[in-house]
Amino acid sequence: MDLKEGSDNYVHGYSNREALRLNDQADTLDNIIHNDTIFPKESFVLEAGCGVGAQTKIIAAKNPDSNFISVDISEDSLNEAGKLIKSLCIKNVEFKQADLYNLPFKDAIFDSAIVCLVLEHLHDPVKALNELKRVLKTGGTLIAIEGDHGSALFYPDSKYAHSAIECQIQLQKQSGGNSNIGRELYPLFKSIGLSDVVISPRMIYADASRPWLVNGFIKNTFTTMIEGVRNKAIQEGITDRLTFEKGIKDLYRTTEPDGVFCYTFFKGTGTKI
Amino acid sequence: MDLKEGSDNYVHGYSNREALRLNDQADTLDNIIHNDTIFPKESFVLEAGCGVGAQTKIIAAKNPDSNFISVDISEDSLNEAGKLIKSLCIKNVEFKQADLYNLPFKDAIFDSAIVCLVLEHLHDPVKALNELKRVLKTGGTLIAIEGDHGSALFYPDSKYAHSAIECQIQLQKQSGGNSNIGRELYPLFKSIGLSDVVISPRMIYADASRPWLVNGFIKNTFTTMIEGVRNKAIQEGITDRLTFEKGIKDLYRTTEPDGVFCYTFFKGTGTKI
Repeated sequence: MDLKEGSDNYVHGYSNREALRLNDQADTLDNIIHNDTIFPKESFVLEAGCGVGAQTKIIAAKNPDSNFISVDISEDSLNEAGKLIKSLCIKNVEFKQADLYNLPFKDAIFDSAIVCLVLEHLHDPVKALNELKRVLKTGGTLIAIEGDHGSALFYPDSKYAHSAIECQIQLQKQSGGNSNIGRELYPLFKSIGLSDVVISPRMIYADASRPWLVNGFIKNTFTTMIEGVRNKAIQEGITDRLTFEKGIKDLYRTTEPDGVFCYTFFKGTGTKI
Repeated sequence: MDLKEGSDNYVHGYSNREALRLNDQADTLDNIIHNDTIFPKESFVLEAGCGVGAQTKIIAAKNPDSNFISVDISEDSLNEAGKLIKSLCIKNVEFKQADLYNLPFKDAIFDSAIVCLVLEHLHDPVKALNELKRVLKTGGTLIAIEGDHGSALFYPDSKYAHSAIECQIQLQKQSGGNSNIGRELYPLFKSIGLSDVVISPRMIYADASRPWLVNGFIKNTFTTMIEGVRNKAIQEGITDRLTFEKGIKDLYRTTEPDGVFCYTFFKGTGTKI
């Protein structure tokens, strides 16, 4: 092997590794959802329901020339979010405690408002969306991103796995929320009178050729979330332990080399007129 | 209004109309599935299970520098397909009657093989895929496109609508097929030893902002297909007339201005090594 051939091999090798790495990065959940969460320069953006800052850190870093006010009802979450953003040296976010149904802002001051994985928890999403619309300038854009548990599709299929997912859906419903709200973004946006409403579905498709999604999404995001309702679902009599455990086992079964798992997030945008 | 302003308005108007028209064209079902069905120049391609030529006309027209042999078991379908292709002045397709399990071709003669919406009907899709692999050259690519009725997701949701869809799934199963085969393309391709297997889900998302899909897909493709099993499903006792009609009514309900409908096709590609 001469130097030239060696260099070529290195270059190709590097190039392949680099491509894989970039692909790996680009194909994470965050990028599937936020690849196009780009605001015009110097936008003044409200992030509603920021929680511990999981989305804040992505959208603020992707839009360094815009300024964000990120609000949440929970002081504890805001403290966590503040620490996270500080640790990442992100400077364009201000946090504020606020009730989504009654925002402490004047009318028509924001260029954009974004709400990620929050509407599913609300008993009155229309009221919250109207409140977001109120604080948007005319011509301002509203963005909402929500999942939909009814979109979970997998191989091997399993009625037990569907039954375990249904436990989460039922408990969310009992709390006044809606785990299947993603499919409703279009009627929700239209119902508050937004124009130019466009819904863009973002499917997470995971099989063994995409191990970062098998681990990052099926195992560590989705199945972990469903496992989290085990005790409550059993206590409330929505399921029994044996059925639930079989469902969780079958969800993990989809992470084996011949398994497949799909889940769809819906991203809606609309304009205040 | 001066000429300049007039021109500007015209240009913008034209541009918007043009964008809408292009979007309209590009966002049809065929383009969602076949936008990237492009073979290298002078490819020799087998289309397996061409039926009446619904896919043939698209892929042959998109690849004028390649030559296609399109096969089907049904002589009647082949006659229809032949007339269609002739009426469109498409010259690069030759039709041949053939059994997918026992193709009348020597080993390793095709650069590519494509099978669209066919595997769902077969009792032994692995046998058919192996037969397609046999006639592919080493390094040749296999493409399969299949739907998955389990992916149907809609607003308003309706257990009756799901029950009507389930009738089609059950009848397909009784005939030895699998209406939910889309999600299985990855394990199917891996099981026959293809390399570089990549599955690309193609979701059809329809709401009132995409009227061509509301009409072209929800009404005229999907719901029409489900309606087609009415009599057989009732005869076989899989459903009763009242339940089925309620399901069909609820499927049409999703085409109203606040309705939403999603369905996912899966496109798999793999290489013979």
